[in-house]
Amino acid sequence: MNEAKLKEAKTKPANTANTTGANAANGKSGRRSKSSPPPVRIFSLGGIGEIGKNMYGIEYKNEIVIVDAGLKFPDSRLSGIDYIIPDISYLTQNQHKIKGLFLTHGHEDHIGALPFVLRQLSVPVYGGALTIGLVRAKLEEYRMLGEVKLHVFDENDRFDYQQLSVHFFRTTHSIPDAYGIVIDTPYGAVVHTGDFKFDFTPEDKPANLFKMASVGGEGVLALLADSTNSEKEGFTPSERRVGGAILEAFRQCDGRILFATFASNVHRLQQVVDAAMQCNRKIVVIGRSMEKVFAIGQDLGYIRVPEGMLVDVKHIDRYEDRQILIVCTGSQGEPNAALSRIASGAHRSVQIYPGDTVIFSSSPIPGNGQNVNRSIDMLMRAGAHVIYGSIFDIHTSGHGCREDLKLMLSFIRPKFFIPIHGEYRMLLSHKNLALQTGLTEDRVFVMNIGDTLSVYRNRAKRGRTIPAGEVFISNGEMRLNEDELVEERMELAQEGIVVVVMTVDSRTGKILSGPDIVTRGFVYMQDARPLLRRAEAALRRSLNRMGEKETYSQKLWLRTTQQVMRRYFQREVGRTPHIMPSVLEV
Amino acid sequence: MNEAKLKEAKTKPANTANTTGANAANGKSGRRSKSSPPPVRIFSLGGIGEIGKNMYGIEYKNEIVIVDAGLKFPDSRLSGIDYIIPDISYLTQNQHKIKGLFLTHGHEDHIGALPFVLRQLSVPVYGGALTIGLVRAKLEEYRMLGEVKLHVFDENDRFDYQQLSVHFFRTTHSIPDAYGIVIDTPYGAVVHTGDFKFDFTPEDKPANLFKMASVGGEGVLALLADSTNSEKEGFTPSERRVGGAILEAFRQCDGRILFATFASNVHRLQQVVDAAMQCNRKIVVIGRSMEKVFAIGQDLGYIRVPEGMLVDVKHIDRYEDRQILIVCTGSQGEPNAALSRIASGAHRSVQIYPGDTVIFSSSPIPGNGQNVNRSIDMLMRAGAHVIYGSIFDIHTSGHGCREDLKLMLSFIRPKFFIPIHGEYRMLLSHKNLALQTGLTEDRVFVMNIGDTLSVYRNRAKRGRTIPAGEVFISNGEMRLNEDELVEERMELAQEGIVVVVMTVDSRTGKILSGPDIVTRGFVYMQDARPLLRRAEAALRRSLNRMGEKETYSQKLWLRTTQQVMRRYFQREVGRTPHIMPSVLEV
Repeated sequence: MNEAKLKEAKTKPANTANTTGANAANGKSGRRSKSSPPPVRIFSLGGIGEIGKNMYGIEYKNEIVIVDAGLKFPDSRLSGIDYIIPDISYLTQNQHKIKGLFLTHGHEDHIGALPFVLRQLSVPVYGGALTIGLVRAKLEEYRMLGEVKLHVFDENDRFDYQQLSVHFFRTTHSIPDAYGIVIDTPYGAVVHTGDFKFDFTPEDKPANLFKMASVGGEGVLALLADSTNSEKEGFTPSERRVGGAILEAFRQCDGRILFATFASNVHRLQQVVDAAMQCNRKIVVIGRSMEKVFAIGQDLGYIRVPEGMLVDVKHIDRYEDRQILIVCTGSQGEPNAALSRIASGAHRSVQIYPGDTVIFSSSPIPGNGQNVNRSIDMLMRAGAHVIYGSIFDIHTSGHGCREDLKLMLSFIRPKFFIPIHGEYRMLLSHKNLALQTGLTEDRVFVMNIGDTLSVYRNRAKRGRTIPAGEVFISNGEMRLNEDELVEERMELAQEGIVVVVMTVDSRTGKILSGPDIVTRGFVYMQDARPLLRRAEAALRRSLNRMGEKETYSQKLWLRTTQQVMRRYFQREVGRTPHIMPSVLEV
Repeated sequence: MNEAKLKEAKTKPANTANTTGANAANGKSGRRSKSSPPPVRIFSLGGIGEIGKNMYGIEYKNEIVIVDAGLKFPDSRLSGIDYIIPDISYLTQNQHKIKGLFLTHGHEDHIGALPFVLRQLSVPVYGGALTIGLVRAKLEEYRMLGEVKLHVFDENDRFDYQQLSVHFFRTTHSIPDAYGIVIDTPYGAVVHTGDFKFDFTPEDKPANLFKMASVGGEGVLALLADSTNSEKEGFTPSERRVGGAILEAFRQCDGRILFATFASNVHRLQQVVDAAMQCNRKIVVIGRSMEKVFAIGQDLGYIRVPEGMLVDVKHIDRYEDRQILIVCTGSQGEPNAALSRIASGAHRSVQIYPGDTVIFSSSPIPGNGQNVNRSIDMLMRAGAHVIYGSIFDIHTSGHGCREDLKLMLSFIRPKFFIPIHGEYRMLLSHKNLALQTGLTEDRVFVMNIGDTLSVYRNRAKRGRTIPAGEVFISNGEMRLNEDELVEERMELAQEGIVVVVMTVDSRTGKILSGPDIVTRGFVYMQDARPLLRRAEAALRRSLNRMGEKETYSQKLWLRTTQQVMRRYFQREVGRTPHIMPSVLEV
């Protein structure tokens, strides 16, 4: 297989040797190369100044390597929007330069945008075994599997292009097969850590500290590193500790156990399986993504479940409560996830009853706190004993805290540092850490998406900015202009809408029927009939009055209707609904 | 003044001695009193199972005493709703029984509903000096000051009615003049703690431990106690510690300081004034509610500011940066608060520049986390140094943690215990504390709003439930049916709206003009014109086709339009907008 991949990569330079792309970027670097040597350009299309939709690019001359293609979940104000993904127009303009899209690991904020990115870009995708497994399942859902080249890499692989060369080092995170990515350039290596923490007692393969050290030893030009926990002191606790806590918690239960965690946290799932085994419990898996991960995880050998231990939810009643462990999604209180439906009594086959214990093995992602609390309260009202929050060590983060981050900086010892993967204050706090480790102000760059950093052998400077922003996904469709739609929707949601319709004789301007007023979300119709009838009468009067002096034009009638209605409702109910007049002509 | 109040209270029994109210509650208790003695009924109309809109009632025979009338802030999904207040229909039905409305302290979640409650109830309002000061300002805003009887009480006051009698003990909280309320009944005292923590080094008057102890010593029937921090271990740190931390933080700044905290935290404001004095800084107060509290606080002597220390924002440029301290609202990231407008550059007279230090002296209320982070990031981007979160001791909670709560339980030693002021899991955790202090399961009642607890001398049982729920306030108006409106709005916000209008000859059913389709929040108009034109054509065809077999009726035409359009858009764009057809007849 490695042969195959290497060959595949080796052959690439040939068929991408053309440099005829006459686009700005290319032209620039082309011109520059005559005078000064061209820079290595580093940019982000998502993931800095925010948590989510990670996507980074490393560009040198006519070659671009992309790292990750993630999505972000919108906050509750963005009604009707399912995901947010990066604007990749810079990449579509430079399609011919792109060598490959390399995935650091299999979390949604790093792979979730792929189905949409791959509709616009034709580019081979590389990732660890589990990562590619998850990507394959995702592309299957979108019926795109046929169109895309997927390649599994491991630590010993290396992909050589004309100027750039890509290799990897294994890290530890809350999902197996998490890798740091090294892009060798003529000026030295650019290192992207992916998401990581230093877990010295991991549940699967250890991080490759030796390779990190040797990469650092050979001289690193620039480091891009995960800033998520840069505000938190100390080292992030090992996943191993959680295993013990889970078993401890299970031992104290004699009723059913419901265990909710991130479906993607395969280590956690293995720990749950192991603990269930020791407590002689059968496992019922509920929730689409949880079932998916259990399937993929077992296929690829990342989750080992003893024969006959998994039980279909249909057969749950064949067992006593103390023999049952339900593993489910919903640890973030997502309204449609399994646990939320169970908590609210909306799940078809599982209800909560006294004696149940529910374990939240997760911490709420910022913004989800209220949903999680709502779930917890509903479960408690139903009589469940709920274990959550910092009680017990039932969860640990997958992201390194300040000591982890210092250790990474010390291993890699970059000339230039770019904190990534975090909101602005996390990036700043990571910057300050970097300064503590000896980097100087002029060598640390806190960037925004769309900024480019031009890096030379011994200096770096901010370059021109490239297009970057948010693309909304709703019902599986990209909606570039959705932001304006969303504004309209928010406006509708603020005060509701008033529709005013009438038929007018286009010759005389005489109103033949209407005006009729209908509203939605504005006033409670039953109560408001009189109000609306009065409004209609008032409007008819003013339009007729106008008809006497002005000659009719649809535009004028529409504008007047707008004005009259806005003033009327402002005066009568002190509110300004969105007014939609339409004047039909006969 | 005390005389006045006492007289006022004394005279009350006379003019409320009538028991002619033939409503259910009264009738019931009437019947009951023949057989068994009537119970003391305890109920909540808001504040249990939630944080906010606190309102409690203690009822015996023909007397009701109300404690607090608070509001709750809606989460972001409730577009267009400003506040949520309790449904008080039970009280309006029993108006004749109500003796008084007693306020524990001046926070919005305890006094915020007054302007709306007092439109429906005529009842005298009692509170501590600062509380009444804040209520007066609030009623002035709503131009209701004339209509309402407001009375200031202090610890030595006692209000005697026929059966019930009300007195108070001072507690410590994050606002001065916080009181616990004691309602003496024939079966013993019912004690409502209000919001409290035990602060042994408070910034103003200490809690009256002696009175708590003596109330407890005389035998307490039932205790209702604040559960907000019942999940948190230990004692809540004293406000005094914060004073030191603030001064420490100020000393490290040589640029401008912006200090954001809850306007209502008068102690905190005094600490800020004191620290500013020691650092020779002038104070600029920004934000409506902050200005209000500074005014009221100074009037009533709760905030002492040296002559000439307060500077109008207009004159801010007369001073050097190191001489300026800006105290402002917005510590919760509220989008329209002063600090948020300053952070986003939208404030008319104050902008952030490098060298500024911004201090968040607060912790985000659940649900506000993202807004706070957004503000912090904006401020940092503008170049400010931001102090927030647990860094330094720049904030402490006003609510007691587990040790505070145990101490209160030990002082009061109630026969029966009702945890209040908290979401369900907080109530449960408070219940478990009570069990640890020796109360038995059958004497602790976790209730819902609308539940009533019937308490006798030595037993208590759940009684019938009474009406309770949420009333939405938008633009200062109560909207009892707002929930349905809000549903309509959310629907609009989900997929947008499609308006279809046409003029039809009511005799023939022939379409004279239209159908015209206009949309909002559904599709991006520029892109969608062709789609909409096709939809219009499709609709015209099906209506004409129908016109050939069916005889025209507006109803039928409307229904058909609904169906055709829903199917059409489902098929064409896979979405189901809210469809509003209107058929005009000539």
